[in-house]
Amino acid sequence: MSRSDARADGQFDARFHAQFEELLLWRRDVRHFLSDAVDPLLLVRLLDLARLAPSVGFSQPARFVLVESPARRAAMRENFLRSNQAALADYIGATAALYAQLKLAGLNEAPIHLAVFCDEDTATGRGLGRRTMPEMLRYSVVAAVQNLWLALRMHGVGLGWVSILDPRQVVKDLDVPPTWALVAYCCIGYPKEVHDVPELERSGWERRKVASSAALIMR
Amino acid sequence: MSRSDARADGQFDARFHAQFEELLLWRRDVRHFLSDAVDPLLLVRLLDLARLAPSVGFSQPARFVLVESPARRAAMRENFLRSNQAALADYIGATAALYAQLKLAGLNEAPIHLAVFCDEDTATGRGLGRRTMPEMLRYSVVAAVQNLWLALRMHGVGLGWVSILDPRQVVKDLDVPPTWALVAYCCIGYPKEVHDVPELERSGWERRKVASSAALIMR
Repeated sequence: MSRSDARADGQFDARFHAQFEELLLWRRDVRHFLSDAVDPLLLVRLLDLARLAPSVGFSQPARFVLVESPARRAAMRENFLRSNQAALADYIGATAALYAQLKLAGLNEAPIHLAVFCDEDTATGRGLGRRTMPEMLRYSVVAAVQNLWLALRMHGVGLGWVSILDPRQVVKDLDVPPTWALVAYCCIGYPKEVHDVPELERSGWERRKVASSAALIMR
Repeated sequence: MSRSDARADGQFDARFHAQFEELLLWRRDVRHFLSDAVDPLLLVRLLDLARLAPSVGFSQPARFVLVESPARRAAMRENFLRSNQAALADYIGATAALYAQLKLAGLNEAPIHLAVFCDEDTATGRGLGRRTMPEMLRYSVVAAVQNLWLALRMHGVGLGWVSILDPRQVVKDLDVPPTWALVAYCCIGYPKEVHDVPELERSGWERRKVASSAALIMR
């Protein structure tokens, strides 16, 4: 069953069920961070949990880059500002700009910047399961980020996923191999406030859709 | 802090930390299922947990389709067989075919087939955060699938993600809007055996890479 006879057999009790549901409820996109440091050993340990996520053909394509140099962080902010400027030209304008500013606040405040890439050129997994759906490789990286998000939140640490970026420019600015694709640029730190309602919902940007059995389509 | 004063403030204890790590370890891609039924109410409840995943701009693009008709299930198997045949023409051959057959077993045995799509045409979220990285919409659906995977496993139910499929053909065969993109085709049921080591690792297809602080790249 398990390579370790000492380990339990993967049964979980009702108390855990309830707490896990709480964790999913409290997992929020964080935009405002305290400057308090996050223990680097904690981060390394939680990245190991992230790596337990499924990957297509067991390809394990996630690559984690900690961005600490002030010059490189400035390049990320520049990229964000340019990308956001371009976005404003063709969409909803003032309100969108406001919410985008919140992400900029995260970029300025978060003690940890973590870029997560997909190694599109990896031989690991030998291509299994990704011929008709090559995007499975990047999806495997997303699963790792979601594991990380939950694991961080469990320890009270918040994550904000910044996607208003030119991903190819990030590859250049962080000097990683050109065969790596940016999947997530993550701001990580202790949140200024803790919420179980998404900021975009609280602010009226968008409402949660009613989820019910009616939303399950039958074929 | 919370809309419900009764709810805890999102703190998690050491016992939960350890159990959550166990859950991530035990979350496995399942290929062999028992025919035992899964309670439909449990599935509906866990889909609600899946929907708690983050989504770009709070766009909530995941669409869940339960595939029950024998004719449609047969179409999925046909799609799989065609896609797998095409794959064999250009890769490692016999061994890959063997592992692909395991997925076919899952398609034949799993009591629940769940197709998960991304509604690429949704107005929800108003485009926020997906102009430079439009793939964020599909990534949001992957996060929901990963939530679902963990929630199912917590209840002892297994999921197998089938990606040896022509995704556009699935859209046609399941008669969903052409603006929906297939993200995951999931076989769901109670597993025949429970493992904490990936089947592809046990069988020698691929090894787990050593994850350590050395794997964290600094910039």
